[in-house]
Amino acid sequence: VAKRLEQFKTTIFTQMSMLAIKHGAINLGQGFPNFDGPQFVKDAAIEAIQDGKNQYARGYGVPDLNSAVTARFKKDTGLDVDPESEVTVTSGCTEAIAATMLGLINPGDEVILFAPFYDSYQATLSMAGAKIKCITLRPPDFSVPIDELKSLISKNTRAILMNTPHNPTGKMFTREELDAIASLCIENDVLVLSDEVYDKLAFEMEHISIASLPGMYERTVTMNSLGKTFSLTGWKIGWAIAPPHLTWGIRQAHSYLTFATSTPMQFAAGAALRAPDSYYDELKRDYMAKKAILVKGLKDVGFTVYPSSGTYFVIVDHTPFGKENDVAFCEYLIKEVGVVAIPTSVFYLNPDDGKNLVRFTFCKDEETLRSAVIRMKDKL
Amino acid sequence: VAKRLEQFKTTIFTQMSMLAIKHGAINLGQGFPNFDGPQFVKDAAIEAIQDGKNQYARGYGVPDLNSAVTARFKKDTGLDVDPESEVTVTSGCTEAIAATMLGLINPGDEVILFAPFYDSYQATLSMAGAKIKCITLRPPDFSVPIDELKSLISKNTRAILMNTPHNPTGKMFTREELDAIASLCIENDVLVLSDEVYDKLAFEMEHISIASLPGMYERTVTMNSLGKTFSLTGWKIGWAIAPPHLTWGIRQAHSYLTFATSTPMQFAAGAALRAPDSYYDELKRDYMAKKAILVKGLKDVGFTVYPSSGTYFVIVDHTPFGKENDVAFCEYLIKEVGVVAIPTSVFYLNPDDGKNLVRFTFCKDEETLRSAVIRMKDKL
Ligand SMILES: CSCCC(=O)C(=O)O
Ligand SMILES: CSCCC(=O)C(=O)O
Repeated sequence: VAKRLEQFKTTIFTQMSMLAIKHGAINLGQGFPNFDGPQFVKDAAIEAIQDGKNQYARGYGVPDLNSAVTARFKKDTGLDVDPESEVTVTSGCTEAIAATMLGLINPGDEVILFAPFYDSYQATLSMAGAKIKCITLRPPDFSVPIDELKSLISKNTRAILMNTPHNPTGKMFTREELDAIASLCIENDVLVLSDEVYDKLAFEMEHISIASLPGMYERTVTMNSLGKTFSLTGWKIGWAIAPPHLTWGIRQAHSYLTFATSTPMQFAAGAALRAPDSYYDELKRDYMAKKAILVKGLKDVGFTVYPSSGTYFVIVDHTPFGKENDVAFCEYLIKEVGVVAIPTSVFYLNPDDGKNLVRFTFCKDEETLRSAVIRMKDKL
Repeated sequence: VAKRLEQFKTTIFTQMSMLAIKHGAINLGQGFPNFDGPQFVKDAAIEAIQDGKNQYARGYGVPDLNSAVTARFKKDTGLDVDPESEVTVTSGCTEAIAATMLGLINPGDEVILFAPFYDSYQATLSMAGAKIKCITLRPPDFSVPIDELKSLISKNTRAILMNTPHNPTGKMFTREELDAIASLCIENDVLVLSDEVYDKLAFEMEHISIASLPGMYERTVTMNSLGKTFSLTGWKIGWAIAPPHLTWGIRQAHSYLTFATSTPMQFAAGAALRAPDSYYDELKRDYMAKKAILVKGLKDVGFTVYPSSGTYFVIVDHTPFGKENDVAFCEYLIKEVGVVAIPTSVFYLNPDDGKNLVRFTFCKDEETLRSAVIRMKDKL
């Protein structure tokens, strides 16, 4: 294995999902629904396949999807962006992240991350040869320590990589935090790379795209995907929205990472993004009910549950149950209780920062959530 | 744009396909069929979508596809490989190439390429920080100058990257060439990265996977995909077969480039790879008829047509038509004749090596091929 990847292990999501299967445990680990995506989106994929939309797509996306992306972005942010020069369709947001890093970041560039962070950030920054600077968001509210952020910015800072709503904590960046980050970026000529795949799973407050703040669009890459919003995590359609000078770099990397993304799935994604508001309203209502079941259950079991404003995750403190760290707790939970959660220490540069915290997902049907809670009540 | 990609332009395939649309020209450029893939494969995708196979796949592939890949590999090469530890499913062979480079090649490692080469090789080697050494295959037969290859191998040589059947020339590596390459690699402890996406489009000789040569499997990454063989270039399902110690590196890179590949498409790919021999026989028969039409037509038009043993491409010398180079010729061909071909100079480190050569594809229905020939006869 090349040095750039030597330090990384099999992704924790894969590890835990495999353990879930092996032990017959209820999987509240990796964030994929155990229910299906909407029939109208599936029908659109089937129609595209039947219609012969099966050859290479245009590298940066089929026109229909690029327009649907910009139309939704306009609705969400008020920004008018050009589907031809400012949108790159990718094979999931994971590829949008990789293409952004490899397309825009040079060796030695400094990039600031907020820990805990989704594991691909660190790995793709390593591929790009970036120097990682890291700020830890701490419970209970995981708020951004702006002074610390300020002190990390140097003349080599190329970008701040953020994620709102935030995986794994469920934190959403507040307007005040976004304003502060925006000011720092504008003052210091720093880019923002913003992963917003959970934007439609914002329950306690309104999602704000940092690109929509004054002066920010021209220095922001906004990344999103189909999977979480449409319960089709396996379709792997994502995109990056950025001004043309940044889009150029992203597209170059994308051309050589995957060239293009599945054509029929892109047509289906276009149809999905044109869903009426009622689709998103219902999604939110469903998830709020699921969240209520899980959060109440986890509290009843005896966890300290930290407030989660968005995403389909919640973070809890497992220390009432006496295990030495998050990994030991999750092992016990799988083997003795039959429930899978995600240990969070892998999401920190310093694993100790996550040793009290584990993540549960509520993207499962209500019965599954209830069964998991019952198992924990019985056996923890 | 990051320095690693600065020197690269929009891929020539995209450039030419866009010009084809703009000028209403017949597109014999980018290699995608203008006919559809087989119904049984499309049905398998539709069934998977309807069946709810729509969430994240296992990162390295759904078990069903990994097994189908190894079963076909066994049939083709006699090699028994483990679907669990030696196969990585990727988002097209392009991603298999990127993941192989980023997963196995360190900065400063030397990698030997044969020019002309598919453009993603150079770009992904640049991402990996490799030092490229290049050997030019020359018309009429594009044979491998073994002595030159030998002289390029140094103690820093990490890998030889090859492609058989070869895009853009249609050359297939002979047993003698493969034996010689294998000996050099074994003697010097060098890997082979072998792109074999056109293996089922072998017309004039039998395709040989270099992995099947004695002592080679353990040092070879064999890459392939669904697209060319099943006329579904837009589905973007590829894979890399390699011994476990190499697979580990490839999977690490893949995890962070795309994480996983479209789940329903993977099930369809599994069904495709289990096609009976008759499918491949018919594919070959169809393509031989198309090839005969194009080759005869190009000769009648007045080109020197170089022999092509495999792939759906042929290379011709355009100099009888008096244009200064391949790019000028292709421009004239699009604008004045209404036919798109691919200039080859972009596939060489030294563009001058390709200045007399352009590539045509015959992956189009017979009527399209005939119309293109008529246009060229009329206007060239
Ligand atoms: C590709 S799995 C990672 C995203 C996610 O679903 C998770 O955090 O569990
Ligand atoms: C991704 S386009 C490149 C492969 C191909 O089809 C071609 O060489 O034309």
